[in-house]
Amino acid sequence: MSIAPKIAILPEFDADLARYVEAGGGTVGPLDDLTTGVVWTVPRDPEALGAVLAAHPGISWVQLPFAGVDAFTGIFREGITWTSAKGAYSEPVAEFALALTLGALRSLPARARATSWAPSMGTMLYGLNVLVVGAGGIAQEYIRLIQPFRTHVTVVRRTAEPLSGAERTVTTAEFLDVLPDADVVLLAAASTTQTRRLIDETALRAMKSSAVLVNIARGPLVDTDALVVALREGWIEGAALDVTDPEPLPDGHPLWTLPNALVTPHTADTPEMCAPLLGARVEENVRALLNGGTGFVGLVDVDQGY
Amino acid sequence: MSIAPKIAILPEFDADLARYVEAGGGTVGPLDDLTTGVVWTVPRDPEALGAVLAAHPGISWVQLPFAGVDAFTGIFREGITWTSAKGAYSEPVAEFALALTLGALRSLPARARATSWAPSMGTMLYGLNVLVVGAGGIAQEYIRLIQPFRTHVTVVRRTAEPLSGAERTVTTAEFLDVLPDADVVLLAAASTTQTRRLIDETALRAMKSSAVLVNIARGPLVDTDALVVALREGWIEGAALDVTDPEPLPDGHPLWTLPNALVTPHTADTPEMCAPLLGARVEENVRALLNGGTGFVGLVDVDQGY
Repeated sequence: MSIAPKIAILPEFDADLARYVEAGGGTVGPLDDLTTGVVWTVPRDPEALGAVLAAHPGISWVQLPFAGVDAFTGIFREGITWTSAKGAYSEPVAEFALALTLGALRSLPARARATSWAPSMGTMLYGLNVLVVGAGGIAQEYIRLIQPFRTHVTVVRRTAEPLSGAERTVTTAEFLDVLPDADVVLLAAASTTQTRRLIDETALRAMKSSAVLVNIARGPLVDTDALVVALREGWIEGAALDVTDPEPLPDGHPLWTLPNALVTPHTADTPEMCAPLLGARVEENVRALLNGGTGFVGLVDVDQGY
Repeated sequence: MSIAPKIAILPEFDADLARYVEAGGGTVGPLDDLTTGVVWTVPRDPEALGAVLAAHPGISWVQLPFAGVDAFTGIFREGITWTSAKGAYSEPVAEFALALTLGALRSLPARARATSWAPSMGTMLYGLNVLVVGAGGIAQEYIRLIQPFRTHVTVVRRTAEPLSGAERTVTTAEFLDVLPDADVVLLAAASTTQTRRLIDETALRAMKSSAVLVNIARGPLVDTDALVVALREGWIEGAALDVTDPEPLPDGHPLWTLPNALVTPHTADTPEMCAPLLGARVEENVRALLNGGTGFVGLVDVDQGY
């Protein structure tokens, strides 16, 4: 408990993160046989991280930089505590989800592209039925932000355990039962085999023609080709997507120019917004490592994949 | 007190409004010498309304359909109670103000126009300094909506009477003192001689270069030519305008295409959103007329012009 854990910041050293490691009671050094923890600073290169872990069996804790850890599931190993930024970026991402919700309801994409005055248009958020897929930190914060709008919130999650602020909480199995009532569908769930292509042709056909879809989770939750057809044919009113499949969305893709679609480049939480929030998470987890593993925040459930 | 007031709905009869008049205890009929109240259904043609009032001295109450009554100040007469929709549309307009605030902070106009993936960008609303010009229903509702974001709200109004939810309330005379601290400037004040061109070159130069300007009030509060220069030269970060001067904004105007500007066509409250809200206001004021004038809502201060 009294020996400061030795932490390597990889693959690129980050002086700001080093200060948070030290604030948490750790020491920062190069990767060697004394290294007990790794802060992985990029959301990519899982193979490189896997090689680090294989070569340095003394490492007992890895901090990943994003909430979504789907790229890293292949290298999860026994005997290592994995923490992610799960929940750390809830505020910026939930805020962005609200920006996209209001933008889609109020036709801001079409207005931003317009070069002429036009008749009034748009739908109010007040009193609408909002379906939130996911029950993590982002979903909870989004529900808090829309609370002043007197919306009726239904949450879809793995278990039916009620989520605070939701009028109704149902399991994924009931998704298609509750979907037809939704005016707003917010995707805020992890990308797993269970959520892959949750929004497919069947789901899109089940939605209200006046409904809007917002995705700030992961692109693979949506069948992109089916969404394009749905937007073209008016099965739904609009979609606002901060994540896409494929991502980046290639130039020339119809989602760039459909009048009822808005694509933003995975920008719900920018590096500038995330840096201090990740730093605070790292500090807290270094302190947990120092305390023998008590108090880790953002623990990854290796079996669930998030 | 027991005789149902006879109300004319002009210049165009509206069957929905007639039902609200009757729900309030009035009778609806054509304009004649027994008419005691007028619901004016369009935000224009003040001369026609003035002629109606001159020819029918029995009219003691006029309901106007908008919150802003600047077009009608020339026909305000002694002996008539004027009520507007002041406050009735606070919810849709405040919601739209938040949509524009988040849209401007998160660079949604630029993203909507983009046809390629791009680096992350944008600013969070959490914790920012928000300057609200105006203290009416829209300002109050906007402050309620942004409450979850832990913003620091300063209100500028005619008097320094503190507004609930604001950390600080100052008078218009102190506007230029508080402006340099603002990250967001929301214009939500009536259009009067005092507020005309409140945002002029001096004000724009006093603002933070990272600040965004949102106008959901009236176009003349902003010096449009100065704003174009400010946006071009980066004196401020961006502007989102639901009202313009001139309005409608003509085709080819630079505000349509400046990358950091968003113009929406006076669409914060659409006719579909306003109809039931105006109806409720009419019902309440017919009831007040029936009760000898007790309980009017949205009374116009003829001297102040709003």
